[in-house]
Amino acid sequence: MSHSTSSAAAGDIPVFDRIDDFRAWRREQLKQNKTVGFVPTMGALHEGHLSLVKAAKEECDSVVVSIFVNPAQFAPHEDLDQYPRTFDTDYQSLASTGACAAILLPRVSEMYPSGITLDRSQQRGTFVDVLGLSHQMEGIPRPHFFRGVATVVTKLFNIVQPERAYFGQKDAQQCVVVRNMVNDLLLPIRMRSIPTCREADGLAMSSRNRYLTPEMRKVATLLYRALGAARQSVVGSGNKERKQILEPAYGIIEEVVQQVKDQQLGFDVRLDYLSLVDVATLTELEQLEESQPAILSGAVYVGTTRLIDNILLNAEEL
Amino acid sequence: MSHSTSSAAAGDIPVFDRIDDFRAWRREQLKQNKTVGFVPTMGALHEGHLSLVKAAKEECDSVVVSIFVNPAQFAPHEDLDQYPRTFDTDYQSLASTGACAAILLPRVSEMYPSGITLDRSQQRGTFVDVLGLSHQMEGIPRPHFFRGVATVVTKLFNIVQPERAYFGQKDAQQCVVVRNMVNDLLLPIRMRSIPTCREADGLAMSSRNRYLTPEMRKVATLLYRALGAARQSVVGSGNKERKQILEPAYGIIEEVVQQVKDQQLGFDVRLDYLSLVDVATLTELEQLEESQPAILSGAVYVGTTRLIDNILLNAEEL
Repeated sequence: MSHSTSSAAAGDIPVFDRIDDFRAWRREQLKQNKTVGFVPTMGALHEGHLSLVKAAKEECDSVVVSIFVNPAQFAPHEDLDQYPRTFDTDYQSLASTGACAAILLPRVSEMYPSGITLDRSQQRGTFVDVLGLSHQMEGIPRPHFFRGVATVVTKLFNIVQPERAYFGQKDAQQCVVVRNMVNDLLLPIRMRSIPTCREADGLAMSSRNRYLTPEMRKVATLLYRALGAARQSVVGSGNKERKQILEPAYGIIEEVVQQVKDQQLGFDVRLDYLSLVDVATLTELEQLEESQPAILSGAVYVGTTRLIDNILLNAEEL
Repeated sequence: MSHSTSSAAAGDIPVFDRIDDFRAWRREQLKQNKTVGFVPTMGALHEGHLSLVKAAKEECDSVVVSIFVNPAQFAPHEDLDQYPRTFDTDYQSLASTGACAAILLPRVSEMYPSGITLDRSQQRGTFVDVLGLSHQMEGIPRPHFFRGVATVVTKLFNIVQPERAYFGQKDAQQCVVVRNMVNDLLLPIRMRSIPTCREADGLAMSSRNRYLTPEMRKVATLLYRALGAARQSVVGSGNKERKQILEPAYGIIEEVVQQVKDQQLGFDVRLDYLSLVDVATLTELEQLEESQPAILSGAVYVGTTRLIDNILLNAEEL
């Protein structure tokens, strides 16, 4: 990969694939008293990412976007090799916002100087773990995941040294983990979380949506509809018991699972989990207290593609 | 505890027990284009610490010393409560160097916003672990130790944001762990390690030496003499086999153990371990290659006080 790392022509975004080159650019921002906002991504950008960039630009002088597919957050059986890498269209998308001042595109060898293997038992080097928040919800099927996220975000923060960092609420647990990490590690960074961007039919935007065939795409809204029904069971019907809150959500998912089976569409739909947790502790709730901030979330497989989504209760931001 | 945190009179060192107040001071250094050197300590300062402060002052405009007895690096059965806390004499020692620009004296509640318990199975919040280098040597009897060190050093680095940080080579494994951590986490900090300060008879200076009675103090040099004999077996006699290198060291220690027993001094001397490892990987060596950088180290108990020491082979700095 070769990209311009020197001062770019008007309208061009400098792309840094060497950390030292980026640091020189960062020092220049400091000298010019420019505040830096940071949007870490794995690329395959969609409107959700661009909304983070735009939100960052509203609050900061210069917005840095990193594109790095982080090996440490994939397990050996997961889709690291297949994860979409679409730099050219990502670059065009960022340029179209007019809000991105620099792209950081670091190499795996620079990000993991001690090397990185997906086999967790063989991993060496420095890792960051947020105990108590990493091994429930998304951390049950993916026990390696949040250690990988916390580790790479720490590294990226140390490179970019932003005043503010922007994360999408679609990854709700990630927002909670990173916010706690920033707080615990005393990082001088303001963490911001931005509401999930959705397609017209409610499907949460995700880089993995591109794996869906048109027939899969049609049924992929089931999780959002299920979560909406659970919310309605709280907001509309005033239910407080976990069982009653989640019942309509399970109902919608079972219905779609059966429809897809009956219509013999050539793929399966399968529920991974539904969850109702307290926002601060991420512990599962048997009972939702009046005004208790909570996260309704879940994961479903549509074919082999795993989709996640969430809705907040009694909370505006994660 | 109450200390001056405002601009101090000439000769006085400002003491910051609130992180926000320290950050304001740090911003002022940045504005004045002053480089900051950092010496993290647990207090109970001795000449070894002061040599770090002086080394820092030679290379940096402003030297910050932190004093923080870090709960996360103590196990429940260890000496956290008994660890010496001697702020007033520490302050005088630092003032006497004329090299210390600020003292950071953070509170446990600010350093561990998620709380900190010594029972590792109950710990919550963010921890930093350097895998592959933390569970040998000192990490065998103290499996919690280097996670505690890496975590608190990360936090302190994020507060102090020094250009350079100074560590004593007496804690050899700590130097290797922190150096790898700085490298892996891409911290923009130059890590420096400074040779061990010794008493006239060779005993490595340590805050724990004050626990020794005069009779214990007399025999406490056994570890340094043992390590010296092992080095002589390499440098003088050209031995390369682990067994031959360590044999004279074991000999000296067994001799002292027996002497103390025979003289019925009312305390025991006991070897914890001797170690010969590669500097980079900290793996135990069966054979020392020509010019291979290595660490000869060990730990002994003199009474209930645990003393550590080390000598480098084919290496100048850790």
